[in-house]
Amino acid sequence: MNIAMLGSGFIGRFYADSLQGYRSKDKIVTIYSRKAESAKKFAQDYKVPFSTTALEEAINRPEVEVVCIALPNNLHEEAVLLCCKHHKAVVTTKPLGRNGEEAKRMLDAVEHAGIFNGYLEDLVYTPKFLKAHASVRDGALGRILWAKSRETHPGPHSDWFWDIEQAGGGCILDLGCHCVEITRSYIGKDIKPVEVMCWADTQVKPIDAEDHAIALIKYENGAIAQFEVSWTFRGGLDLRDEVMGTEGTIWINSFLRTGFEMFTTGKGGDYIAEKAESNSGWLFPVGDELNELGYNHMFMDMFNCLEKGVAPKETFYDGYVVNSVLDAAYKSARTKLWEPVVLETWRGQSGLSKDQHLVLYDEDHYLVKEEMTHYGKKKLILKNKETGKIFEREV
Amino acid sequence: MNIAMLGSGFIGRFYADSLQGYRSKDKIVTIYSRKAESAKKFAQDYKVPFSTTALEEAINRPEVEVVCIALPNNLHEEAVLLCCKHHKAVVTTKPLGRNGEEAKRMLDAVEHAGIFNGYLEDLVYTPKFLKAHASVRDGALGRILWAKSRETHPGPHSDWFWDIEQAGGGCILDLGCHCVEITRSYIGKDIKPVEVMCWADTQVKPIDAEDHAIALIKYENGAIAQFEVSWTFRGGLDLRDEVMGTEGTIWINSFLRTGFEMFTTGKGGDYIAEKAESNSGWLFPVGDELNELGYNHMFMDMFNCLEKGVAPKETFYDGYVVNSVLDAAYKSARTKLWEPVVLETWRGQSGLSKDQHLVLYDEDHYLVKEEMTHYGKKKLILKNKETGKIFEREV
Amino acid sequence: MNIAMLGSGFIGRFYADSLQGYRSKDKIVTIYSRKAESAKKFAQDYKVPFSTTALEEAINRPEVEVVCIALPNNLHEEAVLLCCKHHKAVVTTKPLGRNGEEAKRMLDAVEHAGIFNGYLEDLVYTPKFLKAHASVRDGALGRILWAKSRETHPGPHSDWFWDIEQAGGGCILDLGCHCVEITRSYIGKDIKPVEVMCWADTQVKPIDAEDHAIALIKYENGAIAQFEVSWTFRGGLDLRDEVMGTEGTIWINSFLRTGFEMFTTGKGGDYIAEKAESNSGWLFPVGDELNELGYNHMFMDMFNCLEKGVAPKETFYDGYVVNSVLDAAYKSARTKLWEPVVLETWRGQSGLSKDQHLVLYDEDHYLVKEEMTHYGKKKLILKNKETGKIFEREV
Amino acid sequence: MNIAMLGSGFIGRFYADSLQGYRSKDKIVTIYSRKAESAKKFAQDYKVPFSTTALEEAINRPEVEVVCIALPNNLHEEAVLLCCKHHKAVVTTKPLGRNGEEAKRMLDAVEHAGIFNGYLEDLVYTPKFLKAHASVRDGALGRILWAKSRETHPGPHSDWFWDIEQAGGGCILDLGCHCVEITRSYIGKDIKPVEVMCWADTQVKPIDAEDHAIALIKYENGAIAQFEVSWTFRGGLDLRDEVMGTEGTIWINSFLRTGFEMFTTGKGGDYIAEKAESNSGWLFPVGDELNELGYNHMFMDMFNCLEKGVAPKETFYDGYVVNSVLDAAYKSARTKLWEPVVLETWRGQSGLSKDQHLVLYDEDHYLVKEEMTHYGKKKLILKNKETGKIFEREV
Repeated sequence: MNIAMLGSGFIGRFYADSLQGYRSKDKIVTIYSRKAESAKKFAQDYKVPFSTTALEEAINRPEVEVVCIALPNNLHEEAVLLCCKHHKAVVTTKPLGRNGEEAKRMLDAVEHAGIFNGYLEDLVYTPKFLKAHASVRDGALGRILWAKSRETHPGPHSDWFWDIEQAGGGCILDLGCHCVEITRSYIGKDIKPVEVMCWADTQVKPIDAEDHAIALIKYENGAIAQFEVSWTFRGGLDLRDEVMGTEGTIWINSFLRTGFEMFTTGKGGDYIAEKAESNSGWLFPVGDELNELGYNHMFMDMFNCLEKGVAPKETFYDGYVVNSVLDAAYKSARTKLWEPVVLETWRGQSGLSKDQHLVLYDEDHYLVKEEMTHYGKKKLILKNKETGKIFEREV
Repeated sequence: MNIAMLGSGFIGRFYADSLQGYRSKDKIVTIYSRKAESAKKFAQDYKVPFSTTALEEAINRPEVEVVCIALPNNLHEEAVLLCCKHHKAVVTTKPLGRNGEEAKRMLDAVEHAGIFNGYLEDLVYTPKFLKAHASVRDGALGRILWAKSRETHPGPHSDWFWDIEQAGGGCILDLGCHCVEITRSYIGKDIKPVEVMCWADTQVKPIDAEDHAIALIKYENGAIAQFEVSWTFRGGLDLRDEVMGTEGTIWINSFLRTGFEMFTTGKGGDYIAEKAESNSGWLFPVGDELNELGYNHMFMDMFNCLEKGVAPKETFYDGYVVNSVLDAAYKSARTKLWEPVVLETWRGQSGLSKDQHLVLYDEDHYLVKEEMTHYGKKKLILKNKETGKIFEREV
Repeated sequence: MNIAMLGSGFIGRFYADSLQGYRSKDKIVTIYSRKAESAKKFAQDYKVPFSTTALEEAINRPEVEVVCIALPNNLHEEAVLLCCKHHKAVVTTKPLGRNGEEAKRMLDAVEHAGIFNGYLEDLVYTPKFLKAHASVRDGALGRILWAKSRETHPGPHSDWFWDIEQAGGGCILDLGCHCVEITRSYIGKDIKPVEVMCWADTQVKPIDAEDHAIALIKYENGAIAQFEVSWTFRGGLDLRDEVMGTEGTIWINSFLRTGFEMFTTGKGGDYIAEKAESNSGWLFPVGDELNELGYNHMFMDMFNCLEKGVAPKETFYDGYVVNSVLDAAYKSARTKLWEPVVLETWRGQSGLSKDQHLVLYDEDHYLVKEEMTHYGKKKLILKNKETGKIFEREV
Repeated sequence: MNIAMLGSGFIGRFYADSLQGYRSKDKIVTIYSRKAESAKKFAQDYKVPFSTTALEEAINRPEVEVVCIALPNNLHEEAVLLCCKHHKAVVTTKPLGRNGEEAKRMLDAVEHAGIFNGYLEDLVYTPKFLKAHASVRDGALGRILWAKSRETHPGPHSDWFWDIEQAGGGCILDLGCHCVEITRSYIGKDIKPVEVMCWADTQVKPIDAEDHAIALIKYENGAIAQFEVSWTFRGGLDLRDEVMGTEGTIWINSFLRTGFEMFTTGKGGDYIAEKAESNSGWLFPVGDELNELGYNHMFMDMFNCLEKGVAPKETFYDGYVVNSVLDAAYKSARTKLWEPVVLETWRGQSGLSKDQHLVLYDEDHYLVKEEMTHYGKKKLILKNKETGKIFEREV
């Protein structure tokens, strides 16, 4: 696959490392950057034959088969529209837009143009997520009750993230978009998110956007999702998910505790640790960040689907749903109310209600709980269906 | 210290194990239970000389120096009033009351009677909490931004917990009381909790009360607390706390991951694992539950203070504050609004506002972030104080 | 219980904290130290009525009921003999002697004098060990095949440890004594240790004794024990045990990973972390070190047994067995051969042989292994009893 | 790259999954299996155009650029010699031979034929290893003192592993080969392994080979390596490495604790867990086994080097060194002596001795240890260079 890469910053480089990693048959053939110097440096580092500071030029070259957008949020729409114009398949970094309206325009544009569109939500492609999600789908946890995703760290790498105009928001938009799609995937992507309650604040940083937020997202079937996002966390990159179902639970730690632990006094030569907040004491590196963060499996899915002519797991439609949920979160943070998720376009189930799923013990009783006592007997806690009375019975 | 124990159930036995454990100089001298059989069994097991089914009789004996209430929630008030009448020191299990009103009446009664009163919130006495709290107090985490406490398990052991009349509520009252006092202690017990947003639902169990709830509690200084409580969790007892400050973070796992891991096929003889949901596969026991859950340090504080004639760390006043926060949580779960915490009596600071605490880089700029780049240079993200513009600078 | 404490150093203080901790009925009534100043300081800190620099004087006072020896290794024997002379119950810190010969003389002396004797091996009294050992005893792991104990840290606190004359050895004697008794307890204290292979070296420190050693200890029933000890470990106190049986495994981490994790930039005020190698970055405190390290349960067992007039779980006999195993380890490190454990006195089983315990599949076959294949079928690997041929069979 | 795959079993399929995974440009073009049915099934599953039961035929086809040997140990040599004959690049699964002699013949053959040769030791290509090794190389741990590798599980999948004739040995050969190369890599592949002490036993399985072994390997520079291998472990696949240096330590857990934890009652539908010993309770899956086990990075290195015409990181020479170390381990298990590693061919450094590396405190003293006391003072433990006396000094 021949790729046009738009953006040569942190995320563009991460993508390039993944795209051209292992023994890949894919190649980046053009690179666009707003700064000529950056474009050239990128071209050199990744052996890209053509670099430019003209957006359209990077897209509209015959050898380009797919365009990969790795630009600041406020530049996504322009790039997407150019892909539509030149009828190029397009994949875009997260979040799709700065808000639902922008996302909707992009969704409509690509669908109207009939081009392949992929939403680069890498965190639903991490190897841990893929396996956990398969277990959930296969019923290992029973009915899903709650899914939580947490992403916190000491703040993003580039200046534009901190500027509310370019970014469109703070940590909710930057990190919450991951969390929304992760938890939505566990609960079921065809289950409608209905309302959101969000707390957000700027507790530490000298910025206009929020640097810390927590939200709850209610789904039509009664399941609840939760996100915790922050740019004020100290200790590295904290990336943890949890799911609870009637039959089990899953805990995933994608970064700080993955089975790799190192202590160093820091005296051992010229050693400089990467990315951690310190380079001595106990450190918790991740072996293969690209793979652990889902980039490899994400691009594999994107390009395999593109070759087969089918939609990938994550499309602009998903990006649009995520943006709509985040819009409700932002509104709720202002109004302090549960705000409805406004979804002009919804392609999943509708009209679900919370099922009751009570467990019958016998004709007359519900089972509340069954347990072993200290003294080795089995005890049942039952509820009489008619009287509603709850009582214990030893068996 | 001579103790009258009221209640011979699960928690009464836990207390007794702790009170008479190690090489203790304290003794239980009377035991009250609603059932004669239970009272006798308890008296036998713990070598208690006097057992009774008459509440007042258990309290009003000359040898009794302190009364320990381990009864269902709806019986606390009666027992407390009898302690007042007979002028006996009293310590009560959590929650203090079924609601703030009840708690307030008990608080007023003990203070009017002038008797020693202790609130048995064991989870702010766990060895891990004590050390973590000391670190927080000493400034290891800087200014506290957020504190979370999670307690979930597959549901309580006795029938009365499941009956909303006796218990006063569901998992919010049963488990949330712990979480509120833990997070409040990290944020500062003199900082006023001002409002609460709570989601609660009955997702699984055939009961009237909630079996799953999540809440946010805002404090006057801008700090935020969070609790996650449930009776629907599968996998054992999940007891985890987290604190975030401007200079660090603390993660505490009090139960399922404490450095003790066992795999067993279950074929090895008559082995029966205690308390876990299964007795084969990977199990995560806790060595000394009594000590890990704070009982030993709690009673040590209570009785040392009683002997010295000073108030213990946790008094009825704290129980009252907790109940008031939970009242707001229950109300919020119904109204779906942020509900104010109503505290008729408040003995901490008042009138605090959210401090700004911005970090100056130089006369003209705030520091947004400082970091090492991939290529080994230090990069600053700064904000111009006047223009508000955010930009990068390499140094 | 009225205690004479001999030694006011690091371990004496640890013992005192435990003995007089919680709501204890035990009291230290005399303190001996080689330095008057230390004795006085200790007396003041722990409210001890009598302090002295005369060993016999500390022991031979009428109020003393039990003597607790917390002295350097080379002073144990003298103190024990004085206890015999004055017929005082005695408990001694680990190791019992500097070698088996010394230990044997002490064992003979206390048994000849008929006094209560306890060996203060705290690490077989940790809450985790107690529960793990109960599981092993109850068969949760099946037949025990291997037990490993690891204790490494950056070196002891006092000068005498580093002096081979006073200490009698290096990290083998200081730390290996723990490991030997832990692993021996898992395998069975009545199973005879028969031979030892040990590697030891002085890799880092400017001392005559070893600062790093690894050993294997073979038991008569075919089980194998292993210890890893070092004074060169960087990263804190590493205290981990593992046991493997035919039906399961146990992993215990007693220090660095016990569910308490803290990150601190170190900027948050005057904070100084205790005992860790650093006071910033990720730290792993232990909540209640005294309890986690077994001191509380150890003294409880010792004094309860003393009151009941029975032998405690760990006696001088156990200390003697441990010293004899360590003697074989030291010898092996020199000779590079498997060295027999010489036990003049052995009170356990004798003449055991390695059992075969083969698992029959049917009349003609042993079961080698049973497993699920990728494609969902059960596969058996069997061995023909007569021909010895091993083959697969799908079922 | 066009690959001939020899062997269609467990490991052949693992290799194929890796080789043709992600967006790979490599393809398997011929498959050989001893059973026609297996060869056909493999060809179908992996879209291989040519399958055969004739070994030479699979190798000697014009489109084949490199041969990948995934056969039982006793068939490696024949396959290697055929590659030499037809002058095909060859990569071979571990261990290279059943013993050093066999390995040496293969090494000599490929070098004489002048063909590219790679040794498929995947576990020195895991992402965690690669990063850890880079840290070690950069000095983060200082001088390496000890490296340990542990691989234990409940036994291999195919019958031939259990047959000492085909396999050449038991768990030492099957698992120890990994451990030897891992620890050797940390210590330095140019440092000579000089002698080995090994304990081995058949504790559980009805086989002639060992099912449990522990060994120590001494290196010329005084560093020590250790392996623990077993086919009797219960609880899954235990894969852990540790390294100690003068300035730090590394702990790697590659399987059972990698940040993915799942509890399931097993009631949630048709769910069947893969590979674990149970399908309910707490399970610890690994997200992307192929990547975590090093296969992807291994083949990337092999084929990139083949294309560039340089030797890969692991060659037949390394396989030969590993076999020679294992030969010494087997001999030691029999003789109960430290056995020399016989290396007819050695291409690293020679004549190293154990350095002393003592740390000077001042002109007259070595520094033994420096530490903070309880009461906040810094204490030094020093050794007088002349007298050898060790003493404490407060500073």
